[in-house]
Amino acid sequence: MKASVLGTGMVGLAISSRLAELGHDVMIGTRDPLKSEDKLASKDAAVKVGTFAESAAFGEIVFNATKGAISLEALKLAGEANLNGKVLVDISNPLDFSRGMPPTLLISNTDSLGEQIQRAFPQVKVVKTLNTVTANIMIYPGQTANGDHHMFISGNDASAKAQVVEILKSFGWIHIVDLGDISTARGTEMYLPLWVRLLGALGTGMFNIKIMK
Amino acid sequence: MKASVLGTGMVGLAISSRLAELGHDVMIGTRDPLKSEDKLASKDAAVKVGTFAESAAFGEIVFNATKGAISLEALKLAGEANLNGKVLVDISNPLDFSRGMPPTLLISNTDSLGEQIQRAFPQVKVVKTLNTVTANIMIYPGQTANGDHHMFISGNDASAKAQVVEILKSFGWIHIVDLGDISTARGTEMYLPLWVRLLGALGTGMFNIKIMK
Repeated sequence: MKASVLGTGMVGLAISSRLAELGHDVMIGTRDPLKSEDKLASKDAAVKVGTFAESAAFGEIVFNATKGAISLEALKLAGEANLNGKVLVDISNPLDFSRGMPPTLLISNTDSLGEQIQRAFPQVKVVKTLNTVTANIMIYPGQTANGDHHMFISGNDASAKAQVVEILKSFGWIHIVDLGDISTARGTEMYLPLWVRLLGALGTGMFNIKIMK
Repeated sequence: MKASVLGTGMVGLAISSRLAELGHDVMIGTRDPLKSEDKLASKDAAVKVGTFAESAAFGEIVFNATKGAISLEALKLAGEANLNGKVLVDISNPLDFSRGMPPTLLISNTDSLGEQIQRAFPQVKVVKTLNTVTANIMIYPGQTANGDHHMFISGNDASAKAQVVEILKSFGWIHIVDLGDISTARGTEMYLPLWVRLLGALGTGMFNIKIMK
């Protein structure tokens, strides 16, 4: 599968490396490829680097791993024509660090970044997932409690969600809960304020939640 | 222990019954005791009924189990003089049902109901807890996955939190995470939008989360 990963932060590098490791053909997209290529060179030679637009045009599926505060801008640079009809896996969180730590949210309660992206790109199949865990757990969930913890998925398109579930399973995810349409991204994005406080209380980001019944 | 439980909804009835079952002397507080007494008569004869103010004056510790939308009003009716110096266990969530289902939050992101109550009653020791699970799990956590799931606690006063931890343990709670000061109530209150969507996806409110590391 040809995959586009937008964003060269910890999440973008983790997702692109893992996809390459699993045999996919990956192009990471960034605002400034020359600058990023240096950063990426030592990381993963298997991952191509291009502009946001080049990466989005390359991918049959697109992963949004940009910072939530600039995701809409990055996706506009990626280009609606390069995204239309494709599955967009939205991993971003609309974190606002301008008020200090822990961060607040730029969007919440009556809207979510997942919904904003879906509204801005109505012909893209937005699937929100992976935004509730740290990068290393996203790609190697089995290293934490043998994978016995939960991932959530939100989106309007059932076949897009089914495709993303298969990718999550290939990463090692066992328990995946379909929360419903893209508006349920409010739930997972609003979990972040609890997550950042658990990070503080536990002293590590290497944790996830399991639903117990 | 003499305990005041404000609110006669599912949570107030559950907490008051459980406290009585554990041998505490309980007075439930309500806006209209005559009306509530009928409701309570068949529930638990061991629980006294009074006004918000009578109940708050009676209790050495006070549980806020009123609806979040009217908690500040109910606590004003309970009376600052009746609350000052006491531990107030705040179980309420600022849910807004006026926009339809699932509910949104009346307060979130840069503030929380727990903090609003603490600011309105600076001499009360507000401890936020139990607001992340349904009433039956609050009082009988061991009936779900043998109690192998987590409760959170937020508050500014360490000794007040220690006292509430003992009460939680007497209910059956095993895993209790101290998130920090009362501002961390933002984390647990903002978890509710995920909780209500899990309620929808799982088809039951009889669940809780366990932290997996």
